[in-house]
Amino acid sequence: MCRFLAYSGDPIFLDTLLIAPEASLVSQSHSAREAKTVVNGDGCGVGWYGARSEPGLYRGILPAWSDANLASLCHQVEAGLFLAHVRSATSGEVTMANCHPFSSGRHLFMHNGQIGGYEAVRRSVEALVPDDLYGLRRGNSDSEAMFLAALGHGLSHDPAGAIAAMLRTCLRIQHANGITQPLRFTAILADGQTLHAFRWASDDRPPSLYWRQLDSGIAIASEPFGDPGDHWHPVAAGTHMTVAGGAARCEEFAVLETQPA
Amino acid sequence: MCRFLAYSGDPIFLDTLLIAPEASLVSQSHSAREAKTVVNGDGCGVGWYGARSEPGLYRGILPAWSDANLASLCHQVEAGLFLAHVRSATSGEVTMANCHPFSSGRHLFMHNGQIGGYEAVRRSVEALVPDDLYGLRRGNSDSEAMFLAALGHGLSHDPAGAIAAMLRTCLRIQHANGITQPLRFTAILADGQTLHAFRWASDDRPPSLYWRQLDSGIAIASEPFGDPGDHWHPVAAGTHMTVAGGAARCEEFAVLETQPA
Amino acid sequence: MCRFLAYSGDPIFLDTLLIAPEASLVSQSHSAREAKTVVNGDGCGVGWYGARSEPGLYRGILPAWSDANLASLCHQVEAGLFLAHVRSATSGEVTMANCHPFSSGRHLFMHNGQIGGYEAVRRSVEALVPDDLYGLRRGNSDSEAMFLAALGHGLSHDPAGAIAAMLRTCLRIQHANGITQPLRFTAILADGQTLHAFRWASDDRPPSLYWRQLDSGIAIASEPFGDPGDHWHPVAAGTHMTVAGGAARCEEFAVLETQPA
Amino acid sequence: MCRFLAYSGDPIFLDTLLIAPEASLVSQSHSAREAKTVVNGDGCGVGWYGARSEPGLYRGILPAWSDANLASLCHQVEAGLFLAHVRSATSGEVTMANCHPFSSGRHLFMHNGQIGGYEAVRRSVEALVPDDLYGLRRGNSDSEAMFLAALGHGLSHDPAGAIAAMLRTCLRIQHANGITQPLRFTAILADGQTLHAFRWASDDRPPSLYWRQLDSGIAIASEPFGDPGDHWHPVAAGTHMTVAGGAARCEEFAVLETQPA
Repeated sequence: MCRFLAYSGDPIFLDTLLIAPEASLVSQSHSAREAKTVVNGDGCGVGWYGARSEPGLYRGILPAWSDANLASLCHQVEAGLFLAHVRSATSGEVTMANCHPFSSGRHLFMHNGQIGGYEAVRRSVEALVPDDLYGLRRGNSDSEAMFLAALGHGLSHDPAGAIAAMLRTCLRIQHANGITQPLRFTAILADGQTLHAFRWASDDRPPSLYWRQLDSGIAIASEPFGDPGDHWHPVAAGTHMTVAGGAARCEEFAVLETQPA
Repeated sequence: MCRFLAYSGDPIFLDTLLIAPEASLVSQSHSAREAKTVVNGDGCGVGWYGARSEPGLYRGILPAWSDANLASLCHQVEAGLFLAHVRSATSGEVTMANCHPFSSGRHLFMHNGQIGGYEAVRRSVEALVPDDLYGLRRGNSDSEAMFLAALGHGLSHDPAGAIAAMLRTCLRIQHANGITQPLRFTAILADGQTLHAFRWASDDRPPSLYWRQLDSGIAIASEPFGDPGDHWHPVAAGTHMTVAGGAARCEEFAVLETQPA
Repeated sequence: MCRFLAYSGDPIFLDTLLIAPEASLVSQSHSAREAKTVVNGDGCGVGWYGARSEPGLYRGILPAWSDANLASLCHQVEAGLFLAHVRSATSGEVTMANCHPFSSGRHLFMHNGQIGGYEAVRRSVEALVPDDLYGLRRGNSDSEAMFLAALGHGLSHDPAGAIAAMLRTCLRIQHANGITQPLRFTAILADGQTLHAFRWASDDRPPSLYWRQLDSGIAIASEPFGDPGDHWHPVAAGTHMTVAGGAARCEEFAVLETQPA
Repeated sequence: MCRFLAYSGDPIFLDTLLIAPEASLVSQSHSAREAKTVVNGDGCGVGWYGARSEPGLYRGILPAWSDANLASLCHQVEAGLFLAHVRSATSGEVTMANCHPFSSGRHLFMHNGQIGGYEAVRRSVEALVPDDLYGLRRGNSDSEAMFLAALGHGLSHDPAGAIAAMLRTCLRIQHANGITQPLRFTAILADGQTLHAFRWASDDRPPSLYWRQLDSGIAIASEPFGDPGDHWHPVAAGTHMTVAGGAARCEEFAVLETQPA
């Protein structure tokens, strides 16, 4: 289980959310040190939008807790839209190319979860990546392949539709290969303007997701952080959440064709 | 153009060939410092056979000239069969997964050259990798894909036939995609007993290859090193060279079907 | 708290002890994943003696659990004397130069513990390093400084005496600077023939140390590993343990001058 | 010989100077690939001033030419004051702690040159670092030690005086140790407002330095880059150059006490 955080709102220094708070994302990378549950020490990454149309991207293979460049960058950079991720590897070894977020043009994408039985279906999932994006495939994780496949399904003009179509195809591939392990997908997509968060799983047990209204904007995260009194809203399974213009909107996110009544 | 070296013979410390000689492989990684032609600073690797059936493998993303682990390993390890490589990236970024040698079971493989226009045919070349080996695909270089494809063509029981079949298929893919850039392939394969060296190119200009009889065994390398008086034999284009049991044998290596007279 | 292991006996593949057993050292690097107590993800290292008078040394900044080179090396290398360490940084950031073991000539050294208040006394501790060894100082950890200082106190001919003299001097430096935090020192030294293990602390609470008689030799480790039925002997605080020729001997290790009655 | 660049002026994207131009700093890291003189592949770094009082800092051990994070950062970050460096190691191995620029509070510092015979005088040079800054000493290069020593000589309120005093002391240490190799020092210091460039050597042969008036500000660099028609001013040996408020001013920089006539 990875951990991630996204923010949309007034420009703030990245460390305001990523480092300063109690149980911040960077501290979650080594939270197990303090005898909590998990370590997310298999690399880290942060992507942010500035004056360019394309986002900035920093990814590293060290655990976030010991990455001096990450700390300096988060202290220095201000942004009104950013994503950050600390990884606990499921598929794909620890290498920069497997670190989140992934980027393509103005898009950033990060994911928590996995395609069950991925090794058996990797080739079929990669076949979903359209030819003109295939050169972007650098690592061997399921997450990067899902992102590129979703781009091929029209991610830039219909994010929810493209993600749903991609997941539907992955499910079919799993089924065709006799895989019964679930497909779990909690993910965040950004295009420079809007954050799209998805929480869905084929077994209705997607990785956790929360959001919170801050003074300066809206944060979405794998788990609450900050002061104990802060109010975090859990995001229900089967949700597509959109954050733009200071407002968050949740709607149902269905992947499988609804059955006739 | 990468640089590489392979050795077969009595066990010797790896640094005897890789570090100690004048113009050794490690010094070739930064030879340009001394105002020669090229830098091979995009990672390095060494593979050797010991008491296990599988070879040992060390690969790193630092230039060989500054890799302290490589230096210590070469000073400490003795082997009668080993391969070493310093990389100058053509396709695929600088990451461990793109460093040579590549390994699978008892095989080691390293390559100098490239598939011209690789980005356009990468997907088709990767399609040559058989399903049961697809999980070994970790990077995005043409070299790794060619190795895995050759394994699928029967590399373990007919090395020259499998390499030729793989190259033939790659040529067809290039032609089908209208690529006129050459396919160049100077490579070394080891299986724990025998070294196979190949020097071939579709335009008859494969990267250079030399071999030399040492007191303790036989060395094959991209370029001569050691004392100026040392006698190195150039390996002709279109050659498959086999080194085993202290003897080197060269035979013609034809990739394209010979034409009837 | 770091974790380490040393072995002396018949040559064995390193992974026999470092990777294969239940709760092996490499798994201890991420044991917190399984909800135990600590993570030791701040780099790793292994040193071993082969045919050279100097040991081989591999150190890396990735957590041991994701270090593919470490895994391959431990699978391939056989040795009758080796040390391995997974780090949880106390003083000194995560960099190769701060990874254990440290080496000098035929010696290897690794340490678990710390000089309390080290930042305030670092300069004085480094002043203990003799001029001819000062060039070996590469990192900024207390452990490396203690090793180099002990070398200056005659580590090569009187290991216990040199370690005691070094610790005594460090204690004086702490006292002279008004530091009341303890000096804790559980460490292993090897010279190619003999293992010396020390467990001592100024507050009588040194990091844990255990040893065990295996079929092939003797293992010393920060904590027991392997089968639950395996019998590990705790090493008492204030002990200098010597392992050579298949035998382990424990004697009292006193740092402070005993007071007259 | 390292290569570096500094800029002061209107805010620009860093890649405008560091990557886009012909013979840019990043291309200088591997210029030898194109058969020029040198490789500067021993790590790289960039420091810039933004909205914080302290600068942002990114340093990496890969050659600049293959560092994807550096490229993204330079594409994304805009600054009116920044420094960048590509290293060719003289003293100190390739590690982040030895990469330039070095930082302390609001200061950034980078250096090209060396203290001749440094290994013999390292301890004495490090002794110049004041106690309260000693904890900042992370690597083992002469450059970092000179920066920290200059801070102790009052770098923040009298840059030229502090640098001269530091160099004078280093010269005395060299002489006291019988070292006849020169002390060469071409360096740039920034405090968030002003750039100070120094070009000096005990043998009057300091590494090269040039500056140029751009449309947006002033660039100082180890060697000219950009269009052949661009006019670069060489900076004479024995110069202290100050850049602030859009103006460059050069004055004599004397290290040794002038002799009475």
